[in-house]
Amino acid sequence: MVDKAFMLLTFIGVPLSVIGSLMHWPSILLFVIYCLTIVALASFMGRATESLAVVAGPRIGGLLNATFGNAVELIISIFSLKAGLVGVVLASLTGSVLGNLLLVAGLSFFVGGVKFKRQRFNVYDARHNSGLLMFAVIVAFVIPEVFSMTMNEGETIALSVGISLILIVLYLAALFFKLVTHRGVYQPKEDRGENHHEEEPEWGKGKAIAILALATVAVAYVSENLVHTFEAVAESFGWTELFIGVIIVAIVGNAAEHASAILMALKNKMDIAVEIAIGSTLQVSMFVAPVLVLISLLFPVNMPLIFTLPELISMASAVLLMVVISNDGESNWFEGATLLAAYFIMGIGFYLL
Amino acid sequence: MVDKAFMLLTFIGVPLSVIGSLMHWPSILLFVIYCLTIVALASFMGRATESLAVVAGPRIGGLLNATFGNAVELIISIFSLKAGLVGVVLASLTGSVLGNLLLVAGLSFFVGGVKFKRQRFNVYDARHNSGLLMFAVIVAFVIPEVFSMTMNEGETIALSVGISLILIVLYLAALFFKLVTHRGVYQPKEDRGENHHEEEPEWGKGKAIAILALATVAVAYVSENLVHTFEAVAESFGWTELFIGVIIVAIVGNAAEHASAILMALKNKMDIAVEIAIGSTLQVSMFVAPVLVLISLLFPVNMPLIFTLPELISMASAVLLMVVISNDGESNWFEGATLLAAYFIMGIGFYLL
Amino acid sequence: MVDKAFMLLTFIGVPLSVIGSLMHWPSILLFVIYCLTIVALASFMGRATESLAVVAGPRIGGLLNATFGNAVELIISIFSLKAGLVGVVLASLTGSVLGNLLLVAGLSFFVGGVKFKRQRFNVYDARHNSGLLMFAVIVAFVIPEVFSMTMNEGETIALSVGISLILIVLYLAALFFKLVTHRGVYQPKEDRGENHHEEEPEWGKGKAIAILALATVAVAYVSENLVHTFEAVAESFGWTELFIGVIIVAIVGNAAEHASAILMALKNKMDIAVEIAIGSTLQVSMFVAPVLVLISLLFPVNMPLIFTLPELISMASAVLLMVVISNDGESNWFEGATLLAAYFIMGIGFYLL
Repeated sequence: MVDKAFMLLTFIGVPLSVIGSLMHWPSILLFVIYCLTIVALASFMGRATESLAVVAGPRIGGLLNATFGNAVELIISIFSLKAGLVGVVLASLTGSVLGNLLLVAGLSFFVGGVKFKRQRFNVYDARHNSGLLMFAVIVAFVIPEVFSMTMNEGETIALSVGISLILIVLYLAALFFKLVTHRGVYQPKEDRGENHHEEEPEWGKGKAIAILALATVAVAYVSENLVHTFEAVAESFGWTELFIGVIIVAIVGNAAEHASAILMALKNKMDIAVEIAIGSTLQVSMFVAPVLVLISLLFPVNMPLIFTLPELISMASAVLLMVVISNDGESNWFEGATLLAAYFIMGIGFYLL
Repeated sequence: MVDKAFMLLTFIGVPLSVIGSLMHWPSILLFVIYCLTIVALASFMGRATESLAVVAGPRIGGLLNATFGNAVELIISIFSLKAGLVGVVLASLTGSVLGNLLLVAGLSFFVGGVKFKRQRFNVYDARHNSGLLMFAVIVAFVIPEVFSMTMNEGETIALSVGISLILIVLYLAALFFKLVTHRGVYQPKEDRGENHHEEEPEWGKGKAIAILALATVAVAYVSENLVHTFEAVAESFGWTELFIGVIIVAIVGNAAEHASAILMALKNKMDIAVEIAIGSTLQVSMFVAPVLVLISLLFPVNMPLIFTLPELISMASAVLLMVVISNDGESNWFEGATLLAAYFIMGIGFYLL
Repeated sequence: MVDKAFMLLTFIGVPLSVIGSLMHWPSILLFVIYCLTIVALASFMGRATESLAVVAGPRIGGLLNATFGNAVELIISIFSLKAGLVGVVLASLTGSVLGNLLLVAGLSFFVGGVKFKRQRFNVYDARHNSGLLMFAVIVAFVIPEVFSMTMNEGETIALSVGISLILIVLYLAALFFKLVTHRGVYQPKEDRGENHHEEEPEWGKGKAIAILALATVAVAYVSENLVHTFEAVAESFGWTELFIGVIIVAIVGNAAEHASAILMALKNKMDIAVEIAIGSTLQVSMFVAPVLVLISLLFPVNMPLIFTLPELISMASAVLLMVVISNDGESNWFEGATLLAAYFIMGIGFYLL
């Protein structure tokens, strides 16, 4: 039933999005069409990823998902950088970190926890991820903020580029660690068997990949159009640009992660839900952000790795909260509620700023 | 013996307090009488709570204790708010957080640890509390501090009210989680039985409640008089008002928690001692503080949830220290000494400020 | 083979250092000679310490090592204080904390982790150390920074002296806890036996002590000369004094710890490697730093316990990262890489500052 509704929504929404943008329909109407279409497309991406996850195992599945979710974000950010909108890019990076860490993980913990009393996820992965979150946000984002206070612009960019290169190298090292040198080392014994092949995937490998690719392209197209409606929508609703960048872009831009993570939480596959939420955060902070810093060197306006103080403190608070909450490898509805409450507090802050 | 001494002190101290305040004895003399009386009354509250804890189980007992300890504080703060003393209220909230987290827990760990080599407490509760401490202080107190830097007064109050509502909702959700949906879920199996009924309570349920109620009323009466001696005492000793608010008010105001927590630590009931210290901190930061923000809307001077930087950094440091120290569900005398040393450092700081 | 090369290097390097400094050879040449000589001497210190560690057990061995490493540092700092170079002393204290916590531990984890898949160390010791790191850096270093913002010089020095006394008392209490009241309490049972005596020490107790003492004296002599070449070297290479203080002094000054810790990691004795890295950090922050504050009272220029903001934030980030990474009592090459990456980021920052 739900699947059919989303299929209908997709086959109506995508053409409507194309027609509406070509015919310059009113912004608020387009905004609603775009949002619904992305949510519908995201459900396809979620199902396709799930099918691939059944075939490829939870880890590769989670990685795939995070990759497809952030490809959209990377493309939109490059266009923004080209237009010199450095502040908007940094705001949407912040929003992506907060959205994945607090909203996606919070909803997964909450919704999953309402259905199941205690949900467990791999505690070794959680601690590995905690170390990386601390490194990316508390070290690599905080250090340039403080050091650049007495630096000129050239030194600030040099510091940003240096840190970006280190972030990318460590991100690749983390993949090498997880997929090569320590593959399966931190898995519980019962998970190392073939029992995840017992479940039948909804779609075959080829079909799942094709659907994932098509949906990603469609999401990218609709997302980019969506961005251009923001200014008009902001004026209508009295929102600031920072609020749109941090909160609205992040919610819509991470719709795919939301859908898949909550789906996994409802199936009590918390390993994958956590991998999507935190893996996506790490990909944004350790890969997308530094790559954007390097790409910005090609454009007239360079992007330093310097967030505004509210953005930085929000991310640092979110990381410290998540590290403490995920430390025991267990979740329940109240831990989800705590993460969501932190998200609302920051949302109010960015709304009023 | 000790019990009889405290009974004598109570039956002398309470009448003396009434007579002294009516006859306007010298402030320093009244200060000493009030303090001793509160300590004596606190011992009654401790014994009554202990009796109730034996009957009702450690969790409800701990909650009861924290409630009775903070009722006094809430009443005094409302009178202060009515008088427009926003700075004093924020200082005494800070002092209550630091006092419970570092002094009460520190003394419990230290005194209990001198008697017993290793003391254990429920590690699930400790982690649940750590998540809430991070949420309340590192998110809900830090965010308005940073965001309000570029806000006007109206936006600052709006942000404070929004955060206060979220804090209260999450506090109630935490009670619902602990007492309804996850009651006993995180208890070790041997504790779920009836074995805590084996111990005989000192007083029956009715008598304990009556004594607790009477002692609370008496403490409230004496405490309020005590507050009015502070100005004169500060002048005599050369203390700043901030030092009195953060350190002196907190020590005397939390005398009940001190007495009960240390008593429990000496009986090796660390679950209750930790519940008193950290539960009381959470009640102050997630319930008393936001309720005061909301109540202040009725008065001419509104109270924002914005602490001074030394207050905020002290609370944040204390929370991070406690989260790391309580993380393993064990305590010893040295962990107590570490918490006490942190309290002394902050005490020197507020004294010199 | 390696041992013989180092012996040769020592017997050539020490006389060359003496002759070169007396004959005022060019600074860059002397710089190279001094550095190589110290590395060679450090290998002797490492071997001597290892022999003593076999005889005395891992704990005392680790303490000995940290002591001998920091004796050099204490002596150099006292000479610097006498010359009024307060900023250089604070920078080299920062460098020592960062060097031990990120570089020494990072290299140990990395090199040990390349050889062994998973290395374990005593998780109780790791948590005990985490509590102390939080106390020393997040409480005792952060509090004076924030509180002194509105203090005059006299109050700042008073606060620094008070905190220094508390740090020293708690450091002595930590030794008392580890060596007297809780000796062996947190050791796994199999380690409490005599099985660490099975291994044969390379040198006897007397010979090891003699070599350790001689090498320490030689290192002290060479180190002091090395410091005087820094200004000329800085000019040649275009380095700032802060970079030399934080990075260069720390690497050369902690050569002994580096050598021993990596040696231990390669032998899979992670308990000792971690004890050297973190124990040395704690000794610097809880003993060397406060002792220097007190000693500075004898000199015309007093040293407050106030670091620059980049120094403080770097230390705080490093501590939070280490607490999260060491929390599980396990290490691997990737955790080492993460610590090293954090060190490089801070290194770039101090280089550009």
